[in-house]
Amino acid sequence: MELKADIKWDDQGLVPAIVQDARTGQVLMLAYMNHEALERSTSTGEAHFWSRSRSELWHKGATSGNTQRILEIRYDCDGDALLLLVEPRGPACHTGEQSCFYRRLWGKGDE
Amino acid sequence: MELKADIKWDDQGLVPAIVQDARTGQVLMLAYMNHEALERSTSTGEAHFWSRSRSELWHKGATSGNTQRILEIRYDCDGDALLLLVEPRGPACHTGEQSCFYRRLWGKGDE
Repeated sequence: MELKADIKWDDQGLVPAIVQDARTGQVLMLAYMNHEALERSTSTGEAHFWSRSRSELWHKGATSGNTQRILEIRYDCDGDALLLLVEPRGPACHTGEQSCFYRRLWGKGDE
Repeated sequence: MELKADIKWDDQGLVPAIVQDARTGQVLMLAYMNHEALERSTSTGEAHFWSRSRSELWHKGATSGNTQRILEIRYDCDGDALLLLVEPRGPACHTGEQSCFYRRLWGKGDE
């Protein structure tokens, strides 16, 4: 896939990938991809990431069954971030929440 | 703001922040915040980031006028990513595109 050349990998060979539910628009999670994760993602159509904590390729949902079918991958103006539009087969978060962003840090009115 | 303690800043003191249009659900950009950027964002209600390329605090839209009014800041299960729900006053991207993610890298059917 030639377009990978347009991606600016960081000094660890990673690029952050935002995962969004293609149907609802809900932002589900932020994870990281290396070359191999992007290759596996595009060849299988299922989201693969690089697990920074385990230092290994991570097929999202391989254990839980909550895989993510990728409909589209977009990249930003700087080429240093990806946006995956997916159909999730279950909750994205290991806590069982649909999205990993289930907690509010601040809301208008808190200031 | 006590909750900042729950945020896991990386070794450069930064945390990635996804910016989403609160009304349309469109993902607009990915940027980075340090302590000060988060402080300014919550005290002013307008998105501030840390510009990694310029190494300076960046009030989004200060030059272009395309500021982002923050309605809510969410954080993820690991505390190492933020999600800003905003009302953008103009395009998020310096190219004039509404979202920085205006280019498609891959789509289902390309495999």
